Amino acid sequence: MRLKAKADRRLRGGHLWIYSNEVDTKATPLKQFEVGEQVVVEQAGGKPLGVAYLNPNNLICGRMVSRDSAQLLDRSLLVHRLKIALSLRQRCFEQDCYRLVYGDSDGLPGLVVDRFYDLLVVQISSAGMERLKAELVEALQQVLKPSAILFRNDGKMRAMEGLDSYVETALGEVPELAPLVENGVNFAAPVLTGQKTGWFYDHRMNRARLQQHVAGKRVLDVFSYIGGWGVQAAAAGASEVLCLDASASALDVVEHNAQLNGVADQVQTLQGDAFDGLKQLKAEAEKFDVIVVDPPAFIQKRKDVRNGEQAYQRINQLAISLLARDGLLVSASCSMHLQRDRLVEIIRASSRQVDRQAQIIEQGHQGADHPVHPAIPETDYLKSMFVRILPSF
Amino acid sequence: MRLKAKADRRLRGGHLWIYSNEVDTKATPLKQFEVGEQVVVEQAGGKPLGVAYLNPNNLICGRMVSRDSAQLLDRSLLVHRLKIALSLRQRCFEQDCYRLVYGDSDGLPGLVVDRFYDLLVVQISSAGMERLKAELVEALQQVLKPSAILFRNDGKMRAMEGLDSYVETALGEVPELAPLVENGVNFAAPVLTGQKTGWFYDHRMNRARLQQHVAGKRVLDVFSYIGGWGVQAAAAGASEVLCLDASASALDVVEHNAQLNGVADQVQTLQGDAFDGLKQLKAEAEKFDVIVVDPPAFIQKRKDVRNGEQAYQRINQLAISLLARDGLLVSASCSMHLQRDRLVEIIRASSRQVDRQAQIIEQGHQGADHPVHPAIPETDYLKSMFVRILPSF
Repeated sequence: MRLKAKADRRLRGGHLWIYSNEVDTKATPLKQFEVGEQVVVEQAGGKPLGVAYLNPNNLICGRMVSRDSAQLLDRSLLVHRLKIALSLRQRCFEQDCYRLVYGDSDGLPGLVVDRFYDLLVVQISSAGMERLKAELVEALQQVLKPSAILFRNDGKMRAMEGLDSYVETALGEVPELAPLVENGVNFAAPVLTGQKTGWFYDHRMNRARLQQHVAGKRVLDVFSYIGGWGVQAAAAGASEVLCLDASASALDVVEHNAQLNGVADQVQTLQGDAFDGLKQLKAEAEKFDVIVVDPPAFIQKRKDVRNGEQAYQRINQLAISLLARDGLLVSASCSMHLQRDRLVEIIRASSRQVDRQAQIIEQGHQGADHPVHPAIPETDYLKSMFVRILPSF
Repeated sequence: MRLKAKADRRLRGGHLWIYSNEVDTKATPLKQFEVGEQVVVEQAGGKPLGVAYLNPNNLICGRMVSRDSAQLLDRSLLVHRLKIALSLRQRCFEQDCYRLVYGDSDGLPGLVVDRFYDLLVVQISSAGMERLKAELVEALQQVLKPSAILFRNDGKMRAMEGLDSYVETALGEVPELAPLVENGVNFAAPVLTGQKTGWFYDHRMNRARLQQHVAGKRVLDVFSYIGGWGVQAAAAGASEVLCLDASASALDVVEHNAQLNGVADQVQTLQGDAFDGLKQLKAEAEKFDVIVVDPPAFIQKRKDVRNGEQAYQRINQLAISLLARDGLLVSASCSMHLQRDRLVEIIRASSRQVDRQAQIIEQGHQGADHPVHPAIPETDYLKSMFVRILPSF
């Protein structure tokens, strides 16, 4: 596939994505390529840049998989890349519970693999990777010898790539609830039916930091899902934890996870919409020492930034108004389109609005099993802020 | 002091600084005010906003110290603010070694206090705070009962405020080397003659993270100063550490600090310019598993951004070229004018330049004793990146 003049620059700078308007479609019409096909990419002058897999129907029509034009992404290269990914995780984590593959950042565009000990939960989000599915299963078996492999190929990205949505067990037997450990706390994740792969490993470091701040405290976990923050707070000595989530089945798993750690007595649940739940708690004059606000992405697309930022501000302001004197707000965002400085601004505005002074005492990012690709800002999406909330200075 | 129309907006939003061009100088000429005087600030319509101390000769001619127009910053308010600052540090740290006061973020503009157990090292950088020096010493004694107080009033900011430069012991006796502990490692800091207050508490969390990555590794600490990173790496099990710094006296303290922790055999020093030292090590074909690059601020002013960014890139590129296969670069910047995404870009460019693939596995910030004021971006200055450096994908 031939690129237009200057279109090679970003790729040579490390980026992996090729946009359809960067292709010299006179020399190499996109329609001549198959969905998922791997081709050698050339700069305008003909010099090869490496291999990409293609999806001619997509705006991002190619993703680089190799800078060696003789090296296709095949079983052998999959094994090599998996080993490189594995060695990072083994260096960083004591137990086999982590995101093993984080797409572009691990040189495996369109692939996510979360590891729950001997179970691998895989998400494929591109046609090029889907075409390699059989080789991938073989490579995963060779490198990791898993007892089970589950494809959670029901993500939103797949429709854009023209891929169907399905959940499929490719190896072994997959339990309803898969065990994992994070920061010394045991959990079970609903890998077959839960959100994404069933668990969010990205907040590991942020939850470890939370543990330092909760001993003897009353904690509220908003958008709790299955209790990643809340149960960890209880295990770290919080006197009382309330997990608020819209999903009754997620809250059932919260209770299960609390029991796993012997903190069922400290953990309560409240089912309902987060905004409504906070308003209700406020009406009841409840106060909390620590409140975690970790919503789903309120900003899915660039055009949603304005509305999304308003939603972040509303929820953070509600949370701040529920904090006891000298309380701690933990405010997170997984929206790629919400910049870190905008979240700071939202915290500023929310706290001033209710006449409080905010001090941001810690800032967190996604963990080491979600490495950031320095050429691809989209790989850096997770933000957390630990904010002390005081009476106005 | 009367503000122009709309000039109150930023202040009401939480900011503390008043620029001289925001003052209605027809109503209240700046020259009528004394240097360091406290006044009530009014919006254009006359409504009071609170109290600021002034420096009519400065571009930033006022800093808000209270939102209650009846409450001047006096000994009583100093005591109150110190107690609020102290309670945060006591909650976050087990030992009395931390930045106790971080200026604007703690509601005490122009004041920095670093605590080394019973010794307080104080930096005043504004005329308004200088005028309160006697009250400050009393307040510090009341809240903290220190055995010694040292004024390191020799910072660069003071000349801009028309303040002279001096070092003065206000209480007790100050040792040449003051003991402190950070992340379980003992240090002695040259509080009388070293950089700033003698020690940089801001990197505490980042150095704690470093400790997780160095066991059995060969580590290079560039711009080592007195070994904050390097000695901590050795104490955490690094097999060999080389501290590189331009200051022979700083390197003497490195050796002292290594001895304090029983790791003198693991820690070597190299005196010289960092760029020259790295080139020399490269010429000698030395390789390191982990390299820490924590330079002084290469960008002091906004106009230095371009040259400064180039310097960051040169030093990071040199460091990357000295890393062994699958090595770790820890790249830090304390330049307020270097945005975090620019440091990512510098890492991208540096690694591509020498044909390596970078994965940013962790990102760090200043510790909780340097809280960020959400209305004042200048209070958020410290960045660290933990970067895995691989052969090009």
